[in-house]
Amino acid sequence: MYTLPSLEATRSISSLAVLTSGGDAPGMNAAIRGVVRSALSQGIEVYGIRRGYSGLLQNDMIPLNSASVSNIVQRGGTFLKSARCPEFHDSDNRRRAAELLKQRNIDALIVIGGDGSLSGAHLFEEETGIPVIGLPGTIDNDIFGTEDTIGFDTAMNTALDAIDRIRDTADSHERHFLVEVMGRNSGFLATHVGIAAGAEMILVPEYAINIEEIALQLAASHRAGTGSSGIIVVAEGNEPNLTAGIAQQLQQQGLTPHISILGHIQRGGRPSGHDRVLASCLGAVAVDYLLAGYSDIMVGVSNGCVVDVPLDDLIRYRKGLDPELLKIALQLHK
Amino acid sequence: MYTLPSLEATRSISSLAVLTSGGDAPGMNAAIRGVVRSALSQGIEVYGIRRGYSGLLQNDMIPLNSASVSNIVQRGGTFLKSARCPEFHDSDNRRRAAELLKQRNIDALIVIGGDGSLSGAHLFEEETGIPVIGLPGTIDNDIFGTEDTIGFDTAMNTALDAIDRIRDTADSHERHFLVEVMGRNSGFLATHVGIAAGAEMILVPEYAINIEEIALQLAASHRAGTGSSGIIVVAEGNEPNLTAGIAQQLQQQGLTPHISILGHIQRGGRPSGHDRVLASCLGAVAVDYLLAGYSDIMVGVSNGCVVDVPLDDLIRYRKGLDPELLKIALQLHK
Amino acid sequence: MYTLPSLEATRSISSLAVLTSGGDAPGMNAAIRGVVRSALSQGIEVYGIRRGYSGLLQNDMIPLNSASVSNIVQRGGTFLKSARCPEFHDSDNRRRAAELLKQRNIDALIVIGGDGSLSGAHLFEEETGIPVIGLPGTIDNDIFGTEDTIGFDTAMNTALDAIDRIRDTADSHERHFLVEVMGRNSGFLATHVGIAAGAEMILVPEYAINIEEIALQLAASHRAGTGSSGIIVVAEGNEPNLTAGIAQQLQQQGLTPHISILGHIQRGGRPSGHDRVLASCLGAVAVDYLLAGYSDIMVGVSNGCVVDVPLDDLIRYRKGLDPELLKIALQLHK
Amino acid sequence: MYTLPSLEATRSISSLAVLTSGGDAPGMNAAIRGVVRSALSQGIEVYGIRRGYSGLLQNDMIPLNSASVSNIVQRGGTFLKSARCPEFHDSDNRRRAAELLKQRNIDALIVIGGDGSLSGAHLFEEETGIPVIGLPGTIDNDIFGTEDTIGFDTAMNTALDAIDRIRDTADSHERHFLVEVMGRNSGFLATHVGIAAGAEMILVPEYAINIEEIALQLAASHRAGTGSSGIIVVAEGNEPNLTAGIAQQLQQQGLTPHISILGHIQRGGRPSGHDRVLASCLGAVAVDYLLAGYSDIMVGVSNGCVVDVPLDDLIRYRKGLDPELLKIALQLHK
Repeated sequence: MYTLPSLEATRSISSLAVLTSGGDAPGMNAAIRGVVRSALSQGIEVYGIRRGYSGLLQNDMIPLNSASVSNIVQRGGTFLKSARCPEFHDSDNRRRAAELLKQRNIDALIVIGGDGSLSGAHLFEEETGIPVIGLPGTIDNDIFGTEDTIGFDTAMNTALDAIDRIRDTADSHERHFLVEVMGRNSGFLATHVGIAAGAEMILVPEYAINIEEIALQLAASHRAGTGSSGIIVVAEGNEPNLTAGIAQQLQQQGLTPHISILGHIQRGGRPSGHDRVLASCLGAVAVDYLLAGYSDIMVGVSNGCVVDVPLDDLIRYRKGLDPELLKIALQLHK
Repeated sequence: MYTLPSLEATRSISSLAVLTSGGDAPGMNAAIRGVVRSALSQGIEVYGIRRGYSGLLQNDMIPLNSASVSNIVQRGGTFLKSARCPEFHDSDNRRRAAELLKQRNIDALIVIGGDGSLSGAHLFEEETGIPVIGLPGTIDNDIFGTEDTIGFDTAMNTALDAIDRIRDTADSHERHFLVEVMGRNSGFLATHVGIAAGAEMILVPEYAINIEEIALQLAASHRAGTGSSGIIVVAEGNEPNLTAGIAQQLQQQGLTPHISILGHIQRGGRPSGHDRVLASCLGAVAVDYLLAGYSDIMVGVSNGCVVDVPLDDLIRYRKGLDPELLKIALQLHK
Repeated sequence: MYTLPSLEATRSISSLAVLTSGGDAPGMNAAIRGVVRSALSQGIEVYGIRRGYSGLLQNDMIPLNSASVSNIVQRGGTFLKSARCPEFHDSDNRRRAAELLKQRNIDALIVIGGDGSLSGAHLFEEETGIPVIGLPGTIDNDIFGTEDTIGFDTAMNTALDAIDRIRDTADSHERHFLVEVMGRNSGFLATHVGIAAGAEMILVPEYAINIEEIALQLAASHRAGTGSSGIIVVAEGNEPNLTAGIAQQLQQQGLTPHISILGHIQRGGRPSGHDRVLASCLGAVAVDYLLAGYSDIMVGVSNGCVVDVPLDDLIRYRKGLDPELLKIALQLHK
Repeated sequence: MYTLPSLEATRSISSLAVLTSGGDAPGMNAAIRGVVRSALSQGIEVYGIRRGYSGLLQNDMIPLNSASVSNIVQRGGTFLKSARCPEFHDSDNRRRAAELLKQRNIDALIVIGGDGSLSGAHLFEEETGIPVIGLPGTIDNDIFGTEDTIGFDTAMNTALDAIDRIRDTADSHERHFLVEVMGRNSGFLATHVGIAAGAEMILVPEYAINIEEIALQLAASHRAGTGSSGIIVVAEGNEPNLTAGIAQQLQQQGLTPHISILGHIQRGGRPSGHDRVLASCLGAVAVDYLLAGYSDIMVGVSNGCVVDVPLDDLIRYRKGLDPELLKIALQLHK
């Protein structure tokens, strides 16, 4: 696991609240547990807010003790539930949320979610002054400033399970399968899944794609017998009809490709060991960052170390895809 | 496992061929291995035909020894490959196939596949007199005369893995998911998956469905809080736009359902223990049935016993769905 | 799944209790859920007794409603907890237990467990007259009168997962592994696991074993190169030092075998689809048997049908191992 | 994944050999594939040496082309097979090995294995001048200079699968399980597994352990009801009878603990996505390091970047365990 920071407490916190927001990701429960147990062990009371910012606006909070988070480290989803909350885009609502926290003497807020949720956290902190720490919880691994996010590793393994199965059929029937994996606008998940699956081709939104050329190339190697079957991993963030378009072109070349859209199975499931350790550590350390006086940051991973990333940066910058990784992906299929 | 028959050899066979046909199913490799090892141990030579009836027509056969089937019992797909073969619907082609077998002094044919493939086997036997034994290999479990088919158990587990994951997201976001599972015209797989997944509703082609009523029912229990999230398992064999139709109706009721089509992931993967034992036994016993003088039969399972089923019956009758099973499914969600 | 009985209600039951006893088995939760939901849907109140007969003697019972058994169909273990209870061997204690049930107006008892637990249920019924229905819950599948038990299928798959992994190392290092699987005095689990794993040898307590001969045979095929690596599945019920004895003999022949004792990992985990459907059906049907006037029976599976088995029979007879199955196991490794 | 180096070719290599040595680890096949495909794409011929250094001494090498490594990225073990080879400790044998490589005009050697294997590689390079690159392949993650090793992530997940199952039984029976995980002298694997499993206690060889104190502590929380069941993860590298000793002490306190030794199931299995990507990248990059003129190094991971580590360092230094990680482990169970 990553190198952990050694932080010194400089601020006093008596009570904090934690919520999960946006799409659920495996490991969110482990992160909540990390926050709760770390806080309790340092004398801090913890409230769990249900249904993300929605629950915050509805004052739907429950006190959490050590037993509240027993036996959840291995569960997918989030027991605090999650939701998208357009109302939180409204500044008045954010101010109202701050009032509700103050009424309960809650000193700080920890938000586990993707970049939309963390952007909301940044605005909330800026406007209300309530200290906020964010944790990157998303299977897409598309958050600027961190090399890893809670849920990415599990989602990669889940997609691989599915593709390993699909390959059995692809090989048995000597067919091509176009497999669409999640990742929103990012090809990060698709690239990793593609390399790990030994995919014949990986198509990501970061690079221009020539459908005709791809189809010709696949059809040629199919006829040559060097690629009679194959897996083409397609990131969902590509232009809308990319997958269908390639399938159509392949059909015109006499092939009979299948399309498989993995969809929501990638979001759930028992978190992998990696995600459980990552989430436990980030959750525990988030409390230490709070006590050390930090705010308006996300706890992320950079150069193999757990670090603080200004929430502001997440909004300004977009995470890129390592071109060396794509080069290797290409090389492994020559 | 099922009770195995005790058969006495009455016929002499010096050489047989085996093929897999139609959609691949987990356990087909174990079945081939069962055939090969059982035949060899009884002094019979074995040829493997590649790509089903296509390979037979193309004379694409390879001699198989014990080592040919080492280390495959645990692999999904079929190492002999499979294909659909419209040419085999032509009687002339079937006669030509018989000639090719006779040229190699092959006395008998074992076909592993679904009911389409086994219908072809029946016609082949009827027209050419070459003894044929069929094995039920399909994830759909929709073959008349047998309670079980090779691949069904694995597909049920694979679909369940996916739905258990989806439930994490459904619960976390309090949403409904419409999950479409395979099964062609049969609701057998859907019913089992639905019971095992604890699905809130199971929709199968065997029973009439009122979309509006279903949507109203789900929306009502959503509002009542007793079913704020839920999994609705839909068999693919229902009328074409059933899934989309329900989703639309639910949206009109203010819900935000998701659709997940499991697709081809259900067809591959390491076979379950159940399928490996079933396939090994059926493969081994198929040779015994041949030696005992049987032909034009499928080796299936009835009343918990391995039995012979006339191939003719498969064509004439359609397997029904046990109404008691659906009754239980319903009862478990009251 | 198995053919379900069609039973007619002849007896009135207003309240029943359910408990799990003995070693836990995957699917016990699904069985409890089946009992609870089936009973509730027929207007019967249900109590859950915690920790098996121990809890019964301690009057540790909780009312169960439909929500009590939500979201447990996919969980291993038993949420009612289980225990072994020597006190229940004492007739006075059994009479006291009956009193406690009567004080709560509980009319009947459903016991989920292995043959020890079901023997206790029989004595309890005989002495107190309180109607009792047993369900076979054990990974060993060693109960007389039923072809299947709740948990067996999952345990087979779990053992296979482990052995598939071990085979990677066995092949890579060209070594033999002696893998001990559970099953108490029965070789049922070992035989199925062995066939499904493609084991080179399966050793079960039902048949005499000559250690020296086995070691010589394995060493010979190792030297011949036809069996440079291999998995030998050993049932735990064999004589105490069988596994170690074979390992020692193999070492004397110059081999370097490893021993792997799978142990308790075989008892837990998400139940397989098969076990969930089986447990759900048996649980639901147990209530129907009660209402139809049955008592002192186990609901089991015979000839592919769900049937009633007198509890008395379980005590008198021992389940045997199908010799045809072992014959096939042998044949598949020639 | 980790940041990859950008290397420039300065040396010409026409042919290289690759071997796997020591205990097998999931991902070794992906690493071989990475080496082979990367080399071929850069015009380098590749030989695969079978059975590690043993095969090298026996001149057991096979030419590998792109198809040789098709469809192996997802397989556990190593298709080149592995072995331990005491003969390679002898300098004369190492010189003889160099002669064999020169006779085939093989310019360089890539070794995938643990620190013993890489120490041998270092001596071989020092004495013979043949360029050598090492890749860290071991589930123990105990190699100095690298934060990650091929196989560690998969082994962690495999151990977790087992412990998640064991927890079902531990909870159902309210018992303690002492689970021994691999890791040789290092507590690295045990610590990660323990955190991810939510273990009640983690015992590693890096820190002194007071058996009596531990037993008293566990017994106390058992009696208090706050820890009626529990998982204690024990690293195998602890003093020989630690696990048995704790079990005995717990028995004296009236508890009934079980012992589970996970053993070799942790070494095999389909590699995780993380290990497949890591192995693919390290394999591909190893060729680039060779071409860039490097030798006598291991390609490892430091601060989240793929880097070169002098093989000499591996022999001199021992990898430590991050005390912050253990602190978190402790905190999460308060």
